Amino acid sequence: MTELLFKVRTLEEGLQLFRQHFDYEYFLSHRKEEIDLLCASRRVLAEDIISQENIPGFNRATMDGYAVKARDTFGASDSLPAYLEVKGEIKMSEKPDFPLPDGQAIRISTGGMLPEGADAVVMLEHTDQLSETLIEINKPVAPWENVLREDEDIKKNELILKKGQCLRPPDIGLLAAVGWDKVVVYRKLGIAIISTGNEIVPVNVKPKPAEVRDINSYALGAAVRETGSIPHYRGIVPDDEVILEGELRGCLENREIDLILISGGSSVGSRDYTLKVLNRLGPPGILVQGLALKPGKPTIVSLNQQKPIIGLPGHPVSALMVFENVIRRIINDLKGEIFPFAEQKTIEAILEKNVFSDAGREEYIRVVLEKRDGQLWAVPILGKSGMISSLARADGYITIGLNQEGLYQGQKVTVILF
Amino acid sequence: MTELLFKVRTLEEGLQLFRQHFDYEYFLSHRKEEIDLLCASRRVLAEDIISQENIPGFNRATMDGYAVKARDTFGASDSLPAYLEVKGEIKMSEKPDFPLPDGQAIRISTGGMLPEGADAVVMLEHTDQLSETLIEINKPVAPWENVLREDEDIKKNELILKKGQCLRPPDIGLLAAVGWDKVVVYRKLGIAIISTGNEIVPVNVKPKPAEVRDINSYALGAAVRETGSIPHYRGIVPDDEVILEGELRGCLENREIDLILISGGSSVGSRDYTLKVLNRLGPPGILVQGLALKPGKPTIVSLNQQKPIIGLPGHPVSALMVFENVIRRIINDLKGEIFPFAEQKTIEAILEKNVFSDAGREEYIRVVLEKRDGQLWAVPILGKSGMISSLARADGYITIGLNQEGLYQGQKVTVILF
Repeated sequence: MTELLFKVRTLEEGLQLFRQHFDYEYFLSHRKEEIDLLCASRRVLAEDIISQENIPGFNRATMDGYAVKARDTFGASDSLPAYLEVKGEIKMSEKPDFPLPDGQAIRISTGGMLPEGADAVVMLEHTDQLSETLIEINKPVAPWENVLREDEDIKKNELILKKGQCLRPPDIGLLAAVGWDKVVVYRKLGIAIISTGNEIVPVNVKPKPAEVRDINSYALGAAVRETGSIPHYRGIVPDDEVILEGELRGCLENREIDLILISGGSSVGSRDYTLKVLNRLGPPGILVQGLALKPGKPTIVSLNQQKPIIGLPGHPVSALMVFENVIRRIINDLKGEIFPFAEQKTIEAILEKNVFSDAGREEYIRVVLEKRDGQLWAVPILGKSGMISSLARADGYITIGLNQEGLYQGQKVTVILF
Repeated sequence: MTELLFKVRTLEEGLQLFRQHFDYEYFLSHRKEEIDLLCASRRVLAEDIISQENIPGFNRATMDGYAVKARDTFGASDSLPAYLEVKGEIKMSEKPDFPLPDGQAIRISTGGMLPEGADAVVMLEHTDQLSETLIEINKPVAPWENVLREDEDIKKNELILKKGQCLRPPDIGLLAAVGWDKVVVYRKLGIAIISTGNEIVPVNVKPKPAEVRDINSYALGAAVRETGSIPHYRGIVPDDEVILEGELRGCLENREIDLILISGGSSVGSRDYTLKVLNRLGPPGILVQGLALKPGKPTIVSLNQQKPIIGLPGHPVSALMVFENVIRRIINDLKGEIFPFAEQKTIEAILEKNVFSDAGREEYIRVVLEKRDGQLWAVPILGKSGMISSLARADGYITIGLNQEGLYQGQKVTVILF
């Protein structure tokens, strides 16, 4: 029995085993595509971005006021103001076509371009207009005060974004600033979703007694979309070794599919032949068979023809929790993303009652969030684990770590939201 | 001057004013559409969902073992086991076609249907198989132990999801469980994005001195997509009152557009005519002119012909922060969403240095996250606010509240990630 060769792994051990066998460099090197910057939000950069220009490219006012030579204001105060002659106004978008003479000032708006010779902007609030052509300045400015210098924001040849960064809205803005209207990113992942089990019927069918609808294709498909990947719904495969093998071989040959999820197959017998099939599909085969997670212990991680195949528990609650904690991390690796925070969605709350776990495994406790007396409470859901309704009722879940025995009432906990 | 009629509002006051004038009920009542459940992730339900069925619909085993009558196991122990005759096995997806006689047991897998008469499952671990047809049970089970009763998960006519809920992957699973393969949700919002200013040039153009590229259309467009809404890129409008009015009237007449964002218009003169135009486009007109935010003070909230028009600062850093903190909340209202947590994406960190703010305004401080000694530190970025590169460098930002004077080194802070 293959079963005996494997020991239950911790999540970190399991991920490490996978990473040792998967050739990320080769995988990512074949996934580059150029897309329009308008569509690049949350995509992962496949190349470093080096600015071809100085930004802003000219000395730019950061306040409304007067462009001046800073030294003309030195020593100015309420009792001994500096007087400067005003030479008109610089319009937005216009390049001043004259150098600023000594002792003169010119009206400028935020974003305007300083004329040659000017090296500071006096804020409007620190001036008094004495006439059309004369102002009084009662506070000195230092050189380059209220000015963004021509290369101060971004320097030509500067590395501004790194390969592997997930592009957030501000990054998109940065790329727009340097004129990158197209950008090279990694292709989106295609993820096959297979539900197995004779008892599973399509969602639009009324189940007969002993049958249940195909919840996992829908719930996992939604979870796949949240990772920015494309779900490939492969439907329901009955408990039949030959059909399962055919389906998996089809997925392995399909170039649109990068990762395969099979849920179910935990009924007596079906788990055994699922394991046999996985080991027939090419090396290295099954890497992990059993993870120290609750729920999620029967999780299988296999790698065949450089495509990961993940076996998830058939139960929808377990399948989704394994997705969030195991598959999401494998997907993040495959996406080529280097930044680890962007995927998190959490909220802090006070734990409402004690929860316990066995040492040596990570445990996920679903919680409902409740606001009471201005405090946010995480109320554990401790019902029967077989209830899909309890999963949907949960706002999120908390994690009892590998070496923790529990979490205690009144403790601050981090809730990971669904 | 219209300017004088308005006072700077706090964010909450501003949102409240908007909510008082906007007819949500009317707005939402015209936005229903039926979509396939496969595409419904993160959409907002436009109707209550009431289950038409009991789920699981049959008495279902939650453990591998033997279906029994609980009373046949009462009193069983290691020293005094109960002996039951085994009558074959229940296959997954098969309805047992006979009632279980007294004193008998039948093999069952997790998810299997209990035969009539059986009211509990004895776990495999608590039995010994003495022969093909005889088992020994050394632990009693209570009635309905290891069984999910036919209506225990979801009851027929039960309200399972409420109008206004944002559908997360577990909710999609729940809808699949009750056979809802189509679902009625609110239409996605269409959001017009207009950049104004003579100095703005398209991203694919090399700016001349004094010009800058149209960063905001791209950055705001990406932020709009993150809310699940559809950006309508309306391009660059020069500083011209007539052209701006024509553009805004076009957006007001466009039925695909529900909300209009104008960034820029803060140069001398352009702000004044923007305000005039907004007040000409129909009642109630400008509601908020100036918010107690930093950055974001010059924000304008207008409502014309029941469409909100928001004026944002032209500076990309300010525009994005106003989007995150003001516009995102208005969008959440327009989406009809009742659950306030789903939009948050935060992480806890320790503040690396003191930061200060004036009382009476909310201040957003951009931070970089750094891991040191296993701790996550939030390092404030305190450079010149004019730098788009500093925004992209930030991992997120922290908020100094309205009545806080600052946050202190070593304090735990919640970082809102971009």
